[in-house]
Amino acid sequence: TLVAVQSLDGCITRGAEPGVGFASEADQAWFRENLRQFDANNMGRRTYEPVRSQVLKAIETGSKRVRIVMTRRPADWHDDRRPDLLEFDSRPPSDIVSDLAARGRREIILLGGSTINRLFLEAGLVDRVWLTLEPEIFGTGRRLVDGPVDGRFHFDEMESLGVSTVLLKYSRLSSPG
Amino acid sequence: TLVAVQSLDGCITRGAEPGVGFASEADQAWFRENLRQFDANNMGRRTYEPVRSQVLKAIETGSKRVRIVMTRRPADWHDDRRPDLLEFDSRPPSDIVSDLAARGRREIILLGGSTINRLFLEAGLVDRVWLTLEPEIFGTGRRLVDGPVDGRFHFDEMESLGVSTVLLKYSRLSSPG
Repeated sequence: TLVAVQSLDGCITRGAEPGVGFASEADQAWFRENLRQFDANNMGRRTYEPVRSQVLKAIETGSKRVRIVMTRRPADWHDDRRPDLLEFDSRPPSDIVSDLAARGRREIILLGGSTINRLFLEAGLVDRVWLTLEPEIFGTGRRLVDGPVDGRFHFDEMESLGVSTVLLKYSRLSSPG
Repeated sequence: TLVAVQSLDGCITRGAEPGVGFASEADQAWFRENLRQFDANNMGRRTYEPVRSQVLKAIETGSKRVRIVMTRRPADWHDDRRPDLLEFDSRPPSDIVSDLAARGRREIILLGGSTINRLFLEAGLVDRVWLTLEPEIFGTGRRLVDGPVDGRFHFDEMESLGVSTVLLKYSRLSSPG
């Protein structure tokens, strides 16, 4: 499940500002609550960096989800590594997903950023897209996906998270058109 | 009212393909129906070009809406000009809007593209944003807005236009925060 929060114009960051500091309290609360239903998460190195201390703290306080950080240089992150809890991996998405499946982890939440989202979409590994739209237009920022992909989805439902924050849920079309 | 159709990742074109050929039949039907409530429309030259023959035909068959095409070189479009029906203008948005208001045209639909949307947002002239989301991810294409702006809106409502096509309506916050 690809999960992201973005502006109305499809920016997942506000300009060059890293992280999702722009996300509303309503989205953040929803995200924390819903993260629990996943048994693994996947993110890119650039997405990991701004949340590193939070991740390490969550693990210390008992979180059992496997977190995979995709990076070209796993060795650089040797000190952060916690087997079965926080791993750094340079392999392609399909290998990572098979490896997680072999460990019984099948509900994977994909947290971006743009490059990681593209790699998973290209590999046909995205079954669901859950998109929070914040009621802002930035005009500049990183995109949901950083290169051409061909992804068609089915709209499942909308949820109101806050006064002006909406969550849209989509799932993969069984036969892409 | 800024009106646009875009992919889930905020592209208003599919890659380099001009126009909105990707828009669903449901969105196009909604658009044709709703265009009637506006007494003027505004678009950029790049948005005009792919729909030029349709616009000229609509005028021939009696459409009375004022259409303003914003271009740096209005003189280049002298032959297309139809006073009070199709005009080419190089002035800033505020002048165009005042001029339309002086002619009693107050319900303006803003049809993009990215540059025109930015100019109107920067000038604080966008009261409503109506965004159709098609259930696709392109990963590349022109954006809703082509440079940094600071726009916050209030979510008004969602309409289902088709099986998987949704329309989100927003209006300007009275005091931007």
